[in-house]
Amino acid sequence: MNQQGILVVVSGFSGAGKGTLMKELLRRYDNYALSISATTRKPREGEENGREYFFLSEEEFKKLRDEHKLVEYAKYVNHYYGTPREYVEEKMAQGKDVILEIEIQGALKVKKRYPDALLLFITPPSAKELKRRLVGRGTESLEVINARLKRAAEEADGMEAYDYLLINDDIDQCVEKMHQLIQLQHEKTSYHLDFLGKMREDLYHLDDRD
Amino acid sequence: MNQQGILVVVSGFSGAGKGTLMKELLRRYDNYALSISATTRKPREGEENGREYFFLSEEEFKKLRDEHKLVEYAKYVNHYYGTPREYVEEKMAQGKDVILEIEIQGALKVKKRYPDALLLFITPPSAKELKRRLVGRGTESLEVINARLKRAAEEADGMEAYDYLLINDDIDQCVEKMHQLIQLQHEKTSYHLDFLGKMREDLYHLDDRD
Repeated sequence: MNQQGILVVVSGFSGAGKGTLMKELLRRYDNYALSISATTRKPREGEENGREYFFLSEEEFKKLRDEHKLVEYAKYVNHYYGTPREYVEEKMAQGKDVILEIEIQGALKVKKRYPDALLLFITPPSAKELKRRLVGRGTESLEVINARLKRAAEEADGMEAYDYLLINDDIDQCVEKMHQLIQLQHEKTSYHLDFLGKMREDLYHLDDRD
Repeated sequence: MNQQGILVVVSGFSGAGKGTLMKELLRRYDNYALSISATTRKPREGEENGREYFFLSEEEFKKLRDEHKLVEYAKYVNHYYGTPREYVEEKMAQGKDVILEIEIQGALKVKKRYPDALLLFITPPSAKELKRRLVGRGTESLEVINARLKRAAEEADGMEAYDYLLINDDIDQCVEKMHQLIQLQHEKTSYHLDFLGKMREDLYHLDDRD
């Protein structure tokens, strides 16, 4: 049976370690495909088209959107970001579990369109620990970090709608838990309605030769 | 943190091996408590009050029901069956994951009352295999077994509402999968709303000393 893949949406507080988690998950298991977003923002140094993002002109992006070829999209700070549908559905049909790493508002749109999508929210063990990690990166001033944490709190609207919360305390354990959660999702009844229907049909029609 | 236990409802086709699964799960792990039903039917040979069932008079049963001390109840073939609430809630409060092995209609009532309950449906790999197992027991005639299978099909209304389907092909794997499923249920966002609320609160209020 070539089972359909699961759609997994991963969000979380910036600094929760999502990037590292994703990288490690993909390194350890080969049944995952990471969706690549499209964006109208310009590539930063070191970024490559088709790796970090698909870099599109605003015209190209709006064409995709208008042709309903985006699973979800949103505008942040004058730039569009969106998830191209084709890659996602192609990989799922191949039996790959497809991971979207997107913001909460986009995630909620995905859930509406794909009710079986699994929504995972990654969080550090505490606000203090999150701050410690951001400070540890050494790329931003304390002022910028504080503003960012406040914004994170503000942007957390809707996190209660996620299916599972993963506390990223230990990267190794967190990866394994994420993998287990996604794999067990394959046992959801909604994926096995055909099996159940056939089972029921067969129970009626077994005869003495069976 | 003394985390609240999960309420787990297990149902399945008769002959799917639920009894053996439960016994094995409880033998391997000590974080489970198996709820004992109350019934107004008479004890059969070898059955003990408080072990297989709590055997009650109809009057005692109706008293429990009228005092809302049953999680769910139903009448089958002139006898009442029900799940006493006290044991379930006490064990959950102690952090035990409580397992109810009940019929589908009762399970759906439990889900209404406890939306976080995890509903697991156990099925053999096929109708033929189910029949083979029932015949193998050697306790019933082929005629009785065929009638039973038809009834099983009829009584399967509502199985689509279960959260997960467990195909009991290999008892060992099935026990482990059930255990994983229940344990991961503890990560459901709905169990961590306090944590999320506090996290958000803290993100707002971190200051430069943090």
